[in-house]
Amino acid sequence: MARKNEIQILVDQFARLPGLGPKSSKRIVLHLIKNRTQLFEPLVKMMDNFIEIIDFCPICGNVTLHSKCDICSSDNRQSDVLCVVESVIDLWAMEKTEMYHGQYHVLGGVLSVFEGVGPDELGIPQLIARIKDENITEVILAMNATVAGQSTTHFIVEQLEGMDLTITTLGRGMPSGGELDYLDSSTIASALNSRQEY
Amino acid sequence: MARKNEIQILVDQFARLPGLGPKSSKRIVLHLIKNRTQLFEPLVKMMDNFIEIIDFCPICGNVTLHSKCDICSSDNRQSDVLCVVESVIDLWAMEKTEMYHGQYHVLGGVLSVFEGVGPDELGIPQLIARIKDENITEVILAMNATVAGQSTTHFIVEQLEGMDLTITTLGRGMPSGGELDYLDSSTIASALNSRQEY
Repeated sequence: MARKNEIQILVDQFARLPGLGPKSSKRIVLHLIKNRTQLFEPLVKMMDNFIEIIDFCPICGNVTLHSKCDICSSDNRQSDVLCVVESVIDLWAMEKTEMYHGQYHVLGGVLSVFEGVGPDELGIPQLIARIKDENITEVILAMNATVAGQSTTHFIVEQLEGMDLTITTLGRGMPSGGELDYLDSSTIASALNSRQEY
Repeated sequence: MARKNEIQILVDQFARLPGLGPKSSKRIVLHLIKNRTQLFEPLVKMMDNFIEIIDFCPICGNVTLHSKCDICSSDNRQSDVLCVVESVIDLWAMEKTEMYHGQYHVLGGVLSVFEGVGPDELGIPQLIARIKDENITEVILAMNATVAGQSTTHFIVEQLEGMDLTITTLGRGMPSGGELDYLDSSTIASALNSRQEY
């Protein structure tokens, strides 16, 4: 079916994006064709503009349209506190709280023996060097509360041993709106361990 | 956060696509940036090429890169059998079976009082005209087995009354691999009604 194959190439290309499969990609391609001027054309134009200028910040690993990201080039942020996150998505989640005003370091992943991701792949030596160079006084290790995230935290803590700084990790316990009945035992145990006087 | 807003525009644009939300769009945009040469650039190029030439077939409503779609322009298909489907996705699903070799007509939706979709919005008068003009002998009404799909089928059957042709609808019953325990009563009832001698 030649008809299908030609359009199928675009569908297949969409299906390579994370979270999309053959069915959702078909739907998207049809939706784009149906909404050519309102959606398809502006999207292509925007992607085309971005492709030239979007890049990762050489300092922290955040996404940026400039040579340095807005966080690294801001004068209004604490320069001696560094928050280490797994990915840019995590950085965005942190920023959304509007509670953190220090610097960031995006690892771009977690240590994984299975996937062959070691300290060098994550740039951990560079992170350690950065902590020294920038006279960081507090490192917040904000990795995800997963086994891989916690192993990575543990590894970084070991590397930082002997340095004169405060190392913190995010508090563990019940999420907002959490109900005991729906939480796993490990979360409840963390919440119990980190209980505070009322 | 100027940093976020600039990239957020692209994320928001992706979030307008069907099935995508803010979270999945963020993931997609980051994935594109991370895979610029292998994915981002080819995708933009491909979309840009398609945007100029892709359109709906004026005869059947299928998606096409040419003035007529490959099904309508094929000489190897039955010209007197017409299968009416709700959408191009349904047409693709029919074609995937490789069991049907007639013509198609894509309605582009179903009748819906709530959404203000009447016979004219679906081009049902044009469908009736087409059936007459092309000397169609069998019309297969392959709408989805939903209330809206079946109302639309019923409406079209009424419009075709008095015309010299066979009107069929898709068989109803157990899907392949279906287990009685997991099927709804309506499906089992259909399967019972359409039971065949062994």
